[in-house]
Amino acid sequence: MTKDHARPLTIGIDLGGTSLRVASYSPAHGILQSLCLRTRLEAGPIAVVEDMCDAVQDLMSRDSSADWLGIGVGSPGPLELPAGRLHHPPNLPGWDGFPLLEELQTRLKPRIVLEGDANVAALAELHHGLGKDMQVDSLCMLTLGTGVGNGIVLNGKLWHGVTGMGGEAGHMTVDREGPECGCGNRGCLEVCASATAIVRAAERLIDSGKAKALAELKEQKRQLTAFDIATAARSGNEDAIAIYGETGRALGICLAGLINILNLPLYVVGGGVANSWDLLSPTLFEELELRSYVYRLTAPGRPAAGGMPNGGTQVKPAKLGDEAGLLGACLLPLESIEDTRAADVAIVN
Amino acid sequence: MTKDHARPLTIGIDLGGTSLRVASYSPAHGILQSLCLRTRLEAGPIAVVEDMCDAVQDLMSRDSSADWLGIGVGSPGPLELPAGRLHHPPNLPGWDGFPLLEELQTRLKPRIVLEGDANVAALAELHHGLGKDMQVDSLCMLTLGTGVGNGIVLNGKLWHGVTGMGGEAGHMTVDREGPECGCGNRGCLEVCASATAIVRAAERLIDSGKAKALAELKEQKRQLTAFDIATAARSGNEDAIAIYGETGRALGICLAGLINILNLPLYVVGGGVANSWDLLSPTLFEELELRSYVYRLTAPGRPAAGGMPNGGTQVKPAKLGDEAGLLGACLLPLESIEDTRAADVAIVN
Repeated sequence: MTKDHARPLTIGIDLGGTSLRVASYSPAHGILQSLCLRTRLEAGPIAVVEDMCDAVQDLMSRDSSADWLGIGVGSPGPLELPAGRLHHPPNLPGWDGFPLLEELQTRLKPRIVLEGDANVAALAELHHGLGKDMQVDSLCMLTLGTGVGNGIVLNGKLWHGVTGMGGEAGHMTVDREGPECGCGNRGCLEVCASATAIVRAAERLIDSGKAKALAELKEQKRQLTAFDIATAARSGNEDAIAIYGETGRALGICLAGLINILNLPLYVVGGGVANSWDLLSPTLFEELELRSYVYRLTAPGRPAAGGMPNGGTQVKPAKLGDEAGLLGACLLPLESIEDTRAADVAIVN
Repeated sequence: MTKDHARPLTIGIDLGGTSLRVASYSPAHGILQSLCLRTRLEAGPIAVVEDMCDAVQDLMSRDSSADWLGIGVGSPGPLELPAGRLHHPPNLPGWDGFPLLEELQTRLKPRIVLEGDANVAALAELHHGLGKDMQVDSLCMLTLGTGVGNGIVLNGKLWHGVTGMGGEAGHMTVDREGPECGCGNRGCLEVCASATAIVRAAERLIDSGKAKALAELKEQKRQLTAFDIATAARSGNEDAIAIYGETGRALGICLAGLINILNLPLYVVGGGVANSWDLLSPTLFEELELRSYVYRLTAPGRPAAGGMPNGGTQVKPAKLGDEAGLLGACLLPLESIEDTRAADVAIVN
């Protein structure tokens, strides 16, 4: 088979603190085959890199007629780019200073594109989720899970900042006297609106002798989750309702700032906490109306919404779920991070 | 004289609530001639537009050998772009909904580029101020005057957002329970760190019976200014020192968010309040160290500063003073806002 007939494919790797997922991807047909492994954190970063490479070789050997455009890797951060080095990643203990990109490049032939996991999710949402539905080429995504990730796409390209550390709105201060965060700050979005923050807020109430029903629930379940608290809120528990109300406010304060700074057509809220959109969105939109005059002018139906795609600034829960990380990683080699990579994009589209 | 020998020149207009400044500009020699008029707000927007056009015609008639590349206009905001319409501009009462761009285009021949005044100042600082000295092509500027303006340049281009309302970090919340702002929010940077905010903070202290020395100063002067309070701070007045300390904290919280979100090489603080850098920078940098792990990793000499121009994330007072607005307006026609304008840049550089 000549190169002319080779199918252009990519490989995507979604590196998480718990699991490692690897897939082959066709721009025409989506994900072809995928593998899911446990991330062997106890064996150290080199062992995990070797597991990644074995999985990649396995998938590549199954498709000998492919023209491999590259390998996209989504990694927990903080990630220094273009160096591709990790700095104290909270979800990958023992990886501080690890040159992930370099270690992969030594072991694998195709071009490797490394990216923070929140950026990867934003890219997936742009090309396969809300961004595609709304035909926008700029968006800002906040991923509310154990922590809070953030990815910003401007004019179709991920915004990295000069050292790959842009898009850390998860550590923007929303309450200057708020709880302490692992990042060293206090009152970041992450300690006010992540799944962890929701559980901690419930535990603070329980510890202070309030929230009797949540205390009983904790007694039953041993460990509360953000989902348990959402279920309690939906059954009418006032404390749980208040916790999600505060989560929506924190998220609204952060998004109001992002709307004022960036004036994008679409803001996406993803991660597990976004499943409780019904509980957090009322206070979220109250804060947007209060705190962002850009939102007040550009929300659907407002005076300056006319110039915007889809009739105004949209703030919505993510369309893609857990698969966003793997799908986005597969898309990375098709993206141009540097201008020199633009040619690849032209080939595959 | 043939077109080949024509000198490429631009016109810049700096529209303010008090004065209207117009200049002719040569990319090779800088500002050639300038005019300064009073902004006749009482006569209404059309009269002011006519004053602007008369001044432009006057300058153009003085240079008949010029090839006029365009007219740049810096205007107070909020400004909707590309429509070029104003929305309730606080410094231009009676101009709500005024189609400034259209009114200028009807009356003037050369291409007109309209831009918010804070963006114009950022552009001037990029090409003639700190951006030039440091050879960076991205920066974020906060202008602390009566209000707080913000201009963001990414990869050499002003970031407008989709409707020209990007770069409103002046209305980012830095203290969720802070004082009310004219924008409808409370605790924006503008009500915590503008010159107006500094005076109000002193007046709140005076009204509550504290700050005896500032009360006496107010009695003498009738109306306090941010400069009076800075002078008092420099002579050791504890209340004035505390007010500037809080100003630095508010500015630090906002900048920490911007550094986390954008990861740019340079953040510039301009406007009259920046003249008190000695008073506000100690608490500003304290907040950056506390609230931005991106700053902690990328400040000069830190682990991830190596990949950055000038050895790390720089936060500095502006180099240009009052002339930034006029100079930046002159530069606008040389900038490409839309890609179709890129050819002009090539001609003049």
